[in-house]
Amino acid sequence: MNYRMIAFILGRVLLILAALLLLPLIAALVFAESVLPFAVTILLTAAVGGALLLVKPRTREIYAREGFACVGLSWLSMSLLGCVPFLISGDIPCFVDAFFETVSGFTTTGASILNDIESLSRSGLFWRSFTHWIGGMGVLVFLMAVLPMSGERSMHIMRAEVPGPTVGKLVPRARQTARILYLIYTVFTVVETVLLMLGGMSFYEALLHAFATAGTGGFSTRNASIAAFDSVYVETVIGVFLVLFGTNFNLFYLILIGRVREALSSEELHRYLEIIAVCVGLIVLGTHGMYGAAGALRNGFFVVMSTLSTAGFCTVDYTLWPSWLQTMIVLLMFVGGCAGSTGGGLKLSRVMLLVRTAWADVGRVISPRRVSRVQMDGRRVTAETTGAVYSYVALVMLILLGCTALISFDGFDFATNFTAALSCISNVGPGLGLIGPSGNFAIFSPFSKLVMAFTMLFGRLEVYAMLILFIPSTWRRR
Amino acid sequence: MNYRMIAFILGRVLLILAALLLLPLIAALVFAESVLPFAVTILLTAAVGGALLLVKPRTREIYAREGFACVGLSWLSMSLLGCVPFLISGDIPCFVDAFFETVSGFTTTGASILNDIESLSRSGLFWRSFTHWIGGMGVLVFLMAVLPMSGERSMHIMRAEVPGPTVGKLVPRARQTARILYLIYTVFTVVETVLLMLGGMSFYEALLHAFATAGTGGFSTRNASIAAFDSVYVETVIGVFLVLFGTNFNLFYLILIGRVREALSSEELHRYLEIIAVCVGLIVLGTHGMYGAAGALRNGFFVVMSTLSTAGFCTVDYTLWPSWLQTMIVLLMFVGGCAGSTGGGLKLSRVMLLVRTAWADVGRVISPRRVSRVQMDGRRVTAETTGAVYSYVALVMLILLGCTALISFDGFDFATNFTAALSCISNVGPGLGLIGPSGNFAIFSPFSKLVMAFTMLFGRLEVYAMLILFIPSTWRRR
Repeated sequence: MNYRMIAFILGRVLLILAALLLLPLIAALVFAESVLPFAVTILLTAAVGGALLLVKPRTREIYAREGFACVGLSWLSMSLLGCVPFLISGDIPCFVDAFFETVSGFTTTGASILNDIESLSRSGLFWRSFTHWIGGMGVLVFLMAVLPMSGERSMHIMRAEVPGPTVGKLVPRARQTARILYLIYTVFTVVETVLLMLGGMSFYEALLHAFATAGTGGFSTRNASIAAFDSVYVETVIGVFLVLFGTNFNLFYLILIGRVREALSSEELHRYLEIIAVCVGLIVLGTHGMYGAAGALRNGFFVVMSTLSTAGFCTVDYTLWPSWLQTMIVLLMFVGGCAGSTGGGLKLSRVMLLVRTAWADVGRVISPRRVSRVQMDGRRVTAETTGAVYSYVALVMLILLGCTALISFDGFDFATNFTAALSCISNVGPGLGLIGPSGNFAIFSPFSKLVMAFTMLFGRLEVYAMLILFIPSTWRRR
Repeated sequence: MNYRMIAFILGRVLLILAALLLLPLIAALVFAESVLPFAVTILLTAAVGGALLLVKPRTREIYAREGFACVGLSWLSMSLLGCVPFLISGDIPCFVDAFFETVSGFTTTGASILNDIESLSRSGLFWRSFTHWIGGMGVLVFLMAVLPMSGERSMHIMRAEVPGPTVGKLVPRARQTARILYLIYTVFTVVETVLLMLGGMSFYEALLHAFATAGTGGFSTRNASIAAFDSVYVETVIGVFLVLFGTNFNLFYLILIGRVREALSSEELHRYLEIIAVCVGLIVLGTHGMYGAAGALRNGFFVVMSTLSTAGFCTVDYTLWPSWLQTMIVLLMFVGGCAGSTGGGLKLSRVMLLVRTAWADVGRVISPRRVSRVQMDGRRVTAETTGAVYSYVALVMLILLGCTALISFDGFDFATNFTAALSCISNVGPGLGLIGPSGNFAIFSPFSKLVMAFTMLFGRLEVYAMLILFIPSTWRRR
């Protein structure tokens, strides 16, 4: 394990975090709020980051292990330092709560322990939503976009931070890939901000909701979330951008370079759009009696996109809907966005591979001599990839059940515990029962909040980068 | 597909079923109840079975496909014919209910739609519990025990009916293996019957509860289940026999032939006993305030064995326990008994393989050059076996979620739907919410009852033997 190189990269990550914290500091200046919370945090973060830079790596070689450890440590450090402003300003005076909220931000979960969001300082709210934007595409991807690193090294880091069963390099150089991803991400965020402003939102609120949409996070500036705006226009803009941010960013790159036909022929995209259409249709079918056809369509589209993209914005309380629609929402929470998007969950292409591989295995069991192959986008999927999908899903299920068991000590009902755990591992936000759209995670004990915060990190970093920190051999000198 | 050979075997299965139906007929004679329900069913079953015997197979070759199809068709036919006595006697006048109850019997689930069990005819109750005994070890294994068949052919059938990740032939000849299994099964049943009679039960009730214990089914003769006897002795006898019937029968065979040390060194057995000890301890910890230490131990042991063995007998209503204990019970429902036992669930050795394989895969992802091997009982597990475990668990999860979604149309809460589906696929019986120990499956619609009946069959036959019936190519002539 090249610990020195890990420290070297971690130092750079923290310097970037310090730089990013300048934005909420500016917000504090603009709103004439105290700059102290951010100034102190910037100094602290820069000091730790700077100290780590003094560690000079003997060699710059890093392998998969170092890549995962870098990402895991970076996210843990970011979460620990990122909650400091909330503690200093008193916006969230309790450490566990501030840590939960910050992890929920960076992992783009959007689960909140705040009962009164609107009572926060405006710069605090800015930082809270900005963590979604930072976490959505990933701070290490950002690092790669701005710092020169050799391709092989950075791919190990990229693979550990970008979600999905396989990480396709868009272009041969990882740095270029990272820049293209951030370019698309930024342009979409800007366009959404402008469109939301055209709908009557202030620049501040438009920007913060664009941050939360981009990362498919789900933090709002209002206690009533998006329902506070009561605007079909706002819901449609956010809904459509959730469709975009839940799509594999590779497709946008393909469109950008003119390979439109290739982008539009993606099987994952087809299934994604089909799932949206079918689920919206089912909600219209099941709730037109409650809202009328137009209202059911409006709510259906927003809830489906909010859940499937794993943003978790709220407009209506779907726990009042028929029970089969609630089950459908739970199933959508498992699926999540497309691979290579900012959405969470298992990722649609992984679910597709899981179903196809299981089906091919059925064929193999029933007719051992028949050759059953798994295909995706017309190409054969290797046994290595399908095996990785199986083991990933198995790990997620074990963590899901483990988290459910641990948080059940608080004594809430099974539906609340199970969907809270699912919501955390899939980075959605709300669930069923007590943590539905009108509920809140404040009800849980500090122990459960910590368990759920780590479950979110496991979910966002796709298990391995977080798990490696808990394996003793990672920390043992050979 | 050798359809003629399938018909040939199916005919024999139905003749055995007709012969087995003589027992409840005798019970009807003894209790001076109408013999008509059983006489008619015996004639019907024998007629269908006899007609199928007229089909002469051109070749006796069968492969995995035929093995699965045989088992699937046999179980479906047995369930359809097995519910006829309930319909004729009027014990369960509705077809869907009678089918559900019969499938629940054969699959040893023990989920019931009956609100008043004690109002049934005594011969009807006998048949209801006897289905557990038939289904526990499997009727095709019985067929192999009594009819001469070549070893290779019968292994395909045995593999499709006996639960667990791998089927070990105890002795080179499958017929001998089947006979040994049934011998152990019968001796245990007789001993349990005698022990229950010593506790004051009538022969009739002792025998029926022994049937239900042997198959780890869970049907009782009383509305209050085992709680009706309010006897520490009865609960202890049944609990201990559940430990035995939830153990891999291969171990008993090893002990029988003097290889005691080998039997006692089984890793699965160690984990099995550890899980029992830990869970009983946790229940004592969590409920000693409700029952006192002795009462908590008594209830803890019974509930753990009832759930882990997937019998599903009831003494206390655990839905009144702390929520973390309920979650623990749900986790036990996933696990189930040992491989090669009459218990359901994923089977403990499969769960062990799943965890070990996932852990080895973590090692492989984090350190690609390290060789991570999965071991069990000191032997290396092949990639084929671990792959089969993954795909089996994936299929079970897909069926679990699918069943949850389909039965949620009835409008019950998520915990009820999810644990009902889990209870069916794991062949347990009760769950949480409305189908807890004091609840009942009568609340569901006919559609949901059919969905759950097939889920039970998928669970008992470990997916493939039932799934093959739904694959169009099975029925297409080449």
